[in-house]
Amino acid sequence: MIFITRRERFNAAHRLFHPDYDDKTNLQIFGKCSNPNWHGHNYELFVTVKGEINPKTGFLINLTSLKDIIRRKITDKLDHKNLNVEVDFLLGKFTSTEVLCVSIWEQLEAEIQQMGAQLHCVKITETENNFVEYYGN
Amino acid sequence: MIFITRRERFNAAHRLFHPDYDDKTNLQIFGKCSNPNWHGHNYELFVTVKGEINPKTGFLINLTSLKDIIRRKITDKLDHKNLNVEVDFLLGKFTSTEVLCVSIWEQLEAEIQQMGAQLHCVKITETENNFVEYYGN
Amino acid sequence: MIFITRRERFNAAHRLFHPDYDDKTNLQIFGKCSNPNWHGHNYELFVTVKGEINPKTGFLINLTSLKDIIRRKITDKLDHKNLNVEVDFLLGKFTSTEVLCVSIWEQLEAEIQQMGAQLHCVKITETENNFVEYYGN
Amino acid sequence: MIFITRRERFNAAHRLFHPDYDDKTNLQIFGKCSNPNWHGHNYELFVTVKGEINPKTGFLINLTSLKDIIRRKITDKLDHKNLNVEVDFLLGKFTSTEVLCVSIWEQLEAEIQQMGAQLHCVKITETENNFVEYYGN
Amino acid sequence: MIFITRRERFNAAHRLFHPDYDDKTNLQIFGKCSNPNWHGHNYELFVTVKGEINPKTGFLINLTSLKDIIRRKITDKLDHKNLNVEVDFLLGKFTSTEVLCVSIWEQLEAEIQQMGAQLHCVKITETENNFVEYYGN
Amino acid sequence: MIFITRRERFNAAHRLFHPDYDDKTNLQIFGKCSNPNWHGHNYELFVTVKGEINPKTGFLINLTSLKDIIRRKITDKLDHKNLNVEVDFLLGKFTSTEVLCVSIWEQLEAEIQQMGAQLHCVKITETENNFVEYYGN
Repeated sequence: MIFITRRERFNAAHRLFHPDYDDKTNLQIFGKCSNPNWHGHNYELFVTVKGEINPKTGFLINLTSLKDIIRRKITDKLDHKNLNVEVDFLLGKFTSTEVLCVSIWEQLEAEIQQMGAQLHCVKITETENNFVEYYGN
Repeated sequence: MIFITRRERFNAAHRLFHPDYDDKTNLQIFGKCSNPNWHGHNYELFVTVKGEINPKTGFLINLTSLKDIIRRKITDKLDHKNLNVEVDFLLGKFTSTEVLCVSIWEQLEAEIQQMGAQLHCVKITETENNFVEYYGN
Repeated sequence: MIFITRRERFNAAHRLFHPDYDDKTNLQIFGKCSNPNWHGHNYELFVTVKGEINPKTGFLINLTSLKDIIRRKITDKLDHKNLNVEVDFLLGKFTSTEVLCVSIWEQLEAEIQQMGAQLHCVKITETENNFVEYYGN
Repeated sequence: MIFITRRERFNAAHRLFHPDYDDKTNLQIFGKCSNPNWHGHNYELFVTVKGEINPKTGFLINLTSLKDIIRRKITDKLDHKNLNVEVDFLLGKFTSTEVLCVSIWEQLEAEIQQMGAQLHCVKITETENNFVEYYGN
Repeated sequence: MIFITRRERFNAAHRLFHPDYDDKTNLQIFGKCSNPNWHGHNYELFVTVKGEINPKTGFLINLTSLKDIIRRKITDKLDHKNLNVEVDFLLGKFTSTEVLCVSIWEQLEAEIQQMGAQLHCVKITETENNFVEYYGN
Repeated sequence: MIFITRRERFNAAHRLFHPDYDDKTNLQIFGKCSNPNWHGHNYELFVTVKGEINPKTGFLINLTSLKDIIRRKITDKLDHKNLNVEVDFLLGKFTSTEVLCVSIWEQLEAEIQQMGAQLHCVKITETENNFVEYYGN
């Protein structure tokens, strides 16, 4: 069993808030991240897959194919976008880094399996001081 | 003459567009950065000042004071904000990194002079692949 | 189960030595790290906690609260200090990165639990070439 | 149980290809990495070992000794070399990052055990966008 | 006058040697970089251009156009290549980082001028411990 | 004219204070950096030299020789040391980053000239948030 990780990046706007609450309450719960005018980040996404090395290529997986899947399913939809309003698989969800990780896992899991590998971890770095990791249930 | 640089960070949303143009024209000129729903970045701001070493302290300038000025005049106003709609010194301007650099220079120049030093450079990193530097006229 | 990590930093002096040994013996065992005049590092501390996502906030934990705990219990006590002589929870201990990790774990474990999450890992980077991780017993 | 990691670096040339295939077929399978004239990388190698803290030193392991083993067994043989043609323990193998990780593990496992610790992970970063980890069978 | 910098990367093999000397002499002059079997690097290329901000766009230059020029003229020719044997504008030259910088400057200078800006600096990082900068004559 | 930079590192303890003042006054002027028990940093030192490319080697300067000079004259004396008490060329001086830069310049200038190049810049990074540069008088 070996693990390979691909990094991709996306620059996006978002806002943390609960639609049932007013701005003041959202400010109390979510702090400056609740700014109704949005803010944004340079997100780094690390996708780790695991499996056996193919004895005919020395690869666990073709990294170019992995990159293509991540871009098609995830970063093409998130890059230079507003995470709260225009990403199909995030509609109606919080855009916390925790929820982003789980949502991206759900988009990638089956695709990775079709490549003959298993999704192991989705990690997102929001700033240089915090990151979230999800390994499935 | 010696040069000292302080790094501060701000996470903000923005959009590149000309208010006289429609979305389609803005897309042609500004590309995906023109998204009407905004996107965002983790900006890094590097402020470099120059001057002589004070023989009583070994300092060019007190770095804590420099940090306080940068936060009060710049990053407290930009962090977790929308650069296009709620920053007093950016209203009516493009929010390209070039314009940000010049605008921040204008906010800091006199304050630095009052500390007994000279502003030398304002540098902003927008992504890991590009940055802008301004040294005054 | 999801994992979130917060990075904090502290700049400190320390020395590796055994109080029962003379300087020459300490030099043999601990090398240049045993310098009786001290040396120091820019330490990076990564605290990882795990738990479930709160469906009312999208958060595992409030990162600002986590930051406050780490600063109050750990980095306010370590930053710009001498790890061997003035930190209550390190007195009488080696100040190797290994012992630092375990000692910081002991300071944080109960506090994290009171936030409704579990401490998962304490990681300390001493230089760009080495780091230590502790996951509890 | 505690984990300590040492980073070492090596700059090397290599090529991904199967000796039974012609250049055209290798290009289809391995892409630009199959260039018959070679290409190269600044590889970063992270070796993680685990074990108990020695109560007489505060160390899991002497990091200088770990560094010496990694250099003698691995990076002295790989640095400024061609991974396909002049490294004894890689002869006849693919030089994918996956195979490099497993091969380095095999070189280090027994040596680490003789130091009184256990090899936990070999991680290699090939570019800023991808890395491989191996934890043994 | 404002300065904007674009980073691009290329992974390449090379060798430092003088064709008139034998391997032993080359080893004396160029050290391990003279290995006849090649070695390689992850090079980082920083291209800085300078000029005035266009009042109609807020840009000094369109960064996408700058990226396209750098890729077409430089990194498409260098990435996953052997710098000594298959790059038209390097044939017959040393492949030291110094010579690379000057050679890349020569390829880019006129192209940048046609964009209405001036090439200011070509910087290449060969390892994390060394880089070269060229500002023209 | 071309510029080449070598990075070296040193981990050291220090304290900012004026010997004529008591601890309380030093605290007012130098803040937490005046801690009488010392603190420390992982310093990064960047030495930039300039000159012409040697047409027989493609080098401005032999980087190994530059590294040897920096280590012999500077980092061997500073690494794992206390900057205030045991470094010959710093005795009686402040150990601010500004004074460090100027003092290192004075140690290196003549040595670099003997190599047939000119010292251009000494840059020291004290933390990830601040650095100082000195270019001579």
